[in-house]
Amino acid sequence: MRFDIPSRVTVVEVGPRDGLQNEKIPVPTADKAAFITALADAGLTQIETSSFVHPQAVPQLADAAEVLASLPARPGVTYSALVPNTKGYERAKEAGIKRIAVFTAASETFAKRNINMTVAESLEAFAPVVRAARADGVSVRGYLSTCFVCPFEGDINKRRVLEVAQALLDLGVQEVAISDTIGAAVPSDVVETVGFLLQSIPRERIALHFHDTYGTALANVAIGLQLGITTFDASAGGLGGCPFAPGAAGNLATEDLVYMLDRMGIHTGVNVAKVTAAAERMQSLLGRRLPSRQLQRLHRVAEST
Amino acid sequence: MRFDIPSRVTVVEVGPRDGLQNEKIPVPTADKAAFITALADAGLTQIETSSFVHPQAVPQLADAAEVLASLPARPGVTYSALVPNTKGYERAKEAGIKRIAVFTAASETFAKRNINMTVAESLEAFAPVVRAARADGVSVRGYLSTCFVCPFEGDINKRRVLEVAQALLDLGVQEVAISDTIGAAVPSDVVETVGFLLQSIPRERIALHFHDTYGTALANVAIGLQLGITTFDASAGGLGGCPFAPGAAGNLATEDLVYMLDRMGIHTGVNVAKVTAAAERMQSLLGRRLPSRQLQRLHRVAEST
Repeated sequence: MRFDIPSRVTVVEVGPRDGLQNEKIPVPTADKAAFITALADAGLTQIETSSFVHPQAVPQLADAAEVLASLPARPGVTYSALVPNTKGYERAKEAGIKRIAVFTAASETFAKRNINMTVAESLEAFAPVVRAARADGVSVRGYLSTCFVCPFEGDINKRRVLEVAQALLDLGVQEVAISDTIGAAVPSDVVETVGFLLQSIPRERIALHFHDTYGTALANVAIGLQLGITTFDASAGGLGGCPFAPGAAGNLATEDLVYMLDRMGIHTGVNVAKVTAAAERMQSLLGRRLPSRQLQRLHRVAEST
Repeated sequence: MRFDIPSRVTVVEVGPRDGLQNEKIPVPTADKAAFITALADAGLTQIETSSFVHPQAVPQLADAAEVLASLPARPGVTYSALVPNTKGYERAKEAGIKRIAVFTAASETFAKRNINMTVAESLEAFAPVVRAARADGVSVRGYLSTCFVCPFEGDINKRRVLEVAQALLDLGVQEVAISDTIGAAVPSDVVETVGFLLQSIPRERIALHFHDTYGTALANVAIGLQLGITTFDASAGGLGGCPFAPGAAGNLATEDLVYMLDRMGIHTGVNVAKVTAAAERMQSLLGRRLPSRQLQRLHRVAEST
């Protein structure tokens, strides 16, 4: 078989935002800043730090501005944040943000439940945000949720994914994160949907964002690599979840992704042991076992000695 | 990309043997028989039930003959067992076995520590066992441990893997299980080593046996499928481990493998929910959380309601 894979990959760390947003236990601002700083120290260059949604919508991330203000400047490291609307963008801009992310879904039902807008409404709402950001020299990523399976609608048509992904790019979004929000996708889904997107969208505009409910996230990454994708999202410790899919697991763990890429000879610049150590501290703060395989392995080693 | 994958796969269930052999809590014979019967009821047609090694070597499996005697005959289901030597084979034959497995390693150090023989000595010891079995119409599988990474020697040369795999086939073994004993392999390892083996060995003679320490097992299966392999080992619940690699996880969980294959449209005949239910009962017996993603998902659902 042909096995052409990229020699370098960018890992986008989404743990501080996508990971923490569903955690019930409030994490103090200083601990969030320490977590993000440790992740930057581990070599991650793209870190989604928080969200400028309405503070009451996601209380855990209400301190977005304070978190950003506490982070040390690091050459080569970009701290980004989620932004839902113009008001959120104004707050993010005040906080000195250099990269934002907007978010919609390929599934109408999911969009309605998650952001209380139709997909078309969400694109309309993001248009001025993206325009303002680009005018300010702020780069923009777009998350596209439920690109493979929706907890309400089931399988999602790849043509619909292309349509919304293209609409995001047309708005001025520079990168679309094709997301498996509930962690149900398998390699054939990735071949089918991402392969189809690549017929119309340049591969450097696509990032893949997998959750790991059924243990298929790394298998999906392996296919993404074979398709030539070079940007993958992950979350330290495997933090995360989906409030609309009971039992859904967290994001693919950063340390598990980097273990695999390292051993495949793919350069990421990220240190597995340092990410694992950062995840272990967050695990202690949250008081629950996180799903990352590296953390589980450390736990077994500790139990056996 | 080309994505040619088989339409059918045989899942070889190794939980009752590879899974239970390292468990400290003794599982009563009746519970083992119930576990195996439930796995057969779930549609598994190849089940490795136990091991005819010296009872003192693996006390958990000392009841191999009793377990076999307790199993219901099922048309189309083959109950196999591990056999280390002629004495073990005689016991297995008395128990009415129809399929046995012998086992050596690609790593000399691993062979020495695991079976206290050099690889050459192990092949010599197995020769009369395989000869007798084949003469009796008993089919034979050969396990080849540490085909990718050895906990003592590190990376294993693919030429050495081919050499020992070929030696097993030359003895009369009908299928070689290329095993990642400590669960460290990644997709590029599978392309490299299994791709190399397939230049000399017909694909129907090769089974792939992955453990899941770093979460890469399903990614490795995805590559195995692309290489045309149609036999994969797994263990209900993700039971298993490796006594020589502290922190090593269990085998790839059967229910996780079948989830992925099902959604990829690959026929296995195995029912995920029934395997998960059998694994859940074994989990209760052992009194520890098993690593299967399906079981973890059920646990999260139960916790959230």
